[in-house]
Parts: sequence; structure tokens; C-alpha cells
Amino acid sequence: MADKNLNDLFLDTLKDIYYAEKQIYKALPKMAKAANSEDLRAAFEKHHTETEGQIERLEQIFESLGKAARGKKCDAIEGILDEGKEIMEEYEGAPALDAGLLAAAQAVEHYEISRYGTLKTWAATLGHKDAVKLLDETLSEEKKTDSDLTKLAASVVNAEAA
Amino acid sequence: MADKNLNDLFLDTLKDIYYAEKQIYKALPKMAKAANSEDLRAAFEKHHTETEGQIERLEQIFESLGKAARGKKCDAIEGILDEGKEIMEEYEGAPALDAGLLAAAQAVEHYEISRYGTLKTWAATLGHKDAVKLLDETLSEEKKTDSDLTKLAASVVNAEAA
Repeated sequence: MADKNLNDLFLDTLKDIYYAEKQIYKALPKMAKAANSEDLRAAFEKHHTETEGQIERLEQIFESLGKAARGKKCDAIEGILDEGKEIMEEYEGAPALDAGLLAAAQAVEHYEISRYGTLKTWAATLGHKDAVKLLDETLSEEKKTDSDLTKLAASVVNAEAA
Repeated sequence: MADKNLNDLFLDTLKDIYYAEKQIYKALPKMAKAANSEDLRAAFEKHHTETEGQIERLEQIFESLGKAARGKKCDAIEGILDEGKEIMEEYEGAPALDAGLLAAAQAVEHYEISRYGTLKTWAATLGHKDAVKLLDETLSEEKKTDSDLTKLAASVVNAEAA
């Protein structure tokens, strides 16, 4: 345990985000179904499809390392998604539901942005060039999704407040 | 429940981040103590002091709304900080400890960035001008901390990999 190095940390964190992505993949259709706004539903559905590609990229990285693609329970994503579930329950049928769903989705995106940013830095240090490229593709997608959700937030929130 | 509006959501989310900040305030000294790198320890200590100011700003916002400053259990921050604890346990004495601590701290920062960004948007919609200003001050601090940690990550990780 005391000699765990950056290779171990990289692999542990890959497993963490692989688990997280699979949980997000399961949660997104529920969030899409709950959303009132058609634009928000469409955004969740689009990100659901993207998440499938992101899971595949992680599997390619595991393969390039000669490791089996395996998840490791990620407490952070469990907690973040639990907050999303709580919003769906507490705000069911309420005017502020979509604003809450958007906020929950942006918390998810920011977790992913932080993990992929970290993994990309480590992959570069470790000389895993293919992994750097794959991680960067996903990181760009996550940042784009977050920025799209920010734009949507202004219109959804203003419509609800009206 | 079915008529919960943006005011309710704003207040619920303020309580969520107020709870989160207090948990972060408790966790940072432990992370500082665990860090090997002096620069990383100093960064955690600096953010500990900043967090105190951020808690005070939230109390000013509660006051401006005529509400008591109260936290509400935030599952997300519990999960994110649990991952930090796990790193401290699993990587105790290991070369990759600091890299793991940095990654955990950046996950915390990104959660805060997402919450303060959301709260600022809602405060603007609701016309809470003082709150917008206070939330923006904290949001800028959190983004600066995240960017400082990113810079530190490169040097910490390279030193550990050497």
C-alpha cells in the first residue's frame, strides 16, 4: 500500500470515473423523463448518447493499458446523483423543477471535468499518449455540455420565474 | 410541495452549500496535515482561510433574505470528501499521495464552482443584487483556487513521477 505510485492512482481513478459514467448513463433518461422543458429533455438525451461514447473511450484506455475495464464504487457520483434524485422528488410538479434538474446536471458535469482534467495531466506525465488524446476528447465534450447547460439555464429559469 | 418556486430552490441550495462549506472547512486542515509538499500544504491552508470568508458571505446572504443561516445535509459534498478520506487512507506514505490529494481538492472546487455559478444565476433572476455580488466574489475565489491547484498539480506530479 505504501508504495502506490502514479500508475496505481491513474488506474484507480480510471475505475472511479468508469463507475461514475455508468451511473450517469443510468440516471440521464430519468432526468430527461422528469424535465418539463423540451430543450432540457433534448439536452439530457444528447448527453446520454455522448456518455455512451465516453464509456467506450474509457474501455479503449483500459485496453491500451492491458487492463480489464472495471469500475470502482465512486462515493462522489453517488452523492451528486442522490442530490438530483432528491430534486426530482422534492420538486415533482413544481415550477422550479427544471432549474433544479439543470443545477444537478451541472454538478455532474463539473465532477467529470475535474476528473478528466486530472486524468489527462497524469496520462501525459506517464507517457500514455493515446489515453491523453481520448481523455481530451471527452474533456472537451464535458466542457461543451456544461456551457450548453449554462445557456439553457438562463432561458429555463427566466421562463419559470415569469 | 408542488408549488415550490425558484425562491425555495435558491434557499434550499444556499443551505446545501452552507453545509458543504462547513464540511470543507473541517476537512482542509486534515488534508494540509497529510500533504507531503510544502506548496500543497500552503495552498490548503490558504483555502482554509478563504473558506472562512466564504461562510461569512453566505451568512450575509441569509441575513439579507431575512432567513436564519442553516445548513442542509449535502450528499454530494459528503461523497466527494469521502473520496478524499479514502485517498488519505489508501495512499498514506505512498509516492502518489499528493497527486491524489490535489485531485480530491479539485473535485471539491468544481462542486463549489458549479453551485456558486447556479446560485449567482438564480440570484440575478430573483433580483437579489447584494447576493449576486457576494456569490460572484466567492465564485471568483473558487475559480482562482482551482487554477492554482492545476498549476501545482503539474509540478507535484512531475516531482513524484521522477
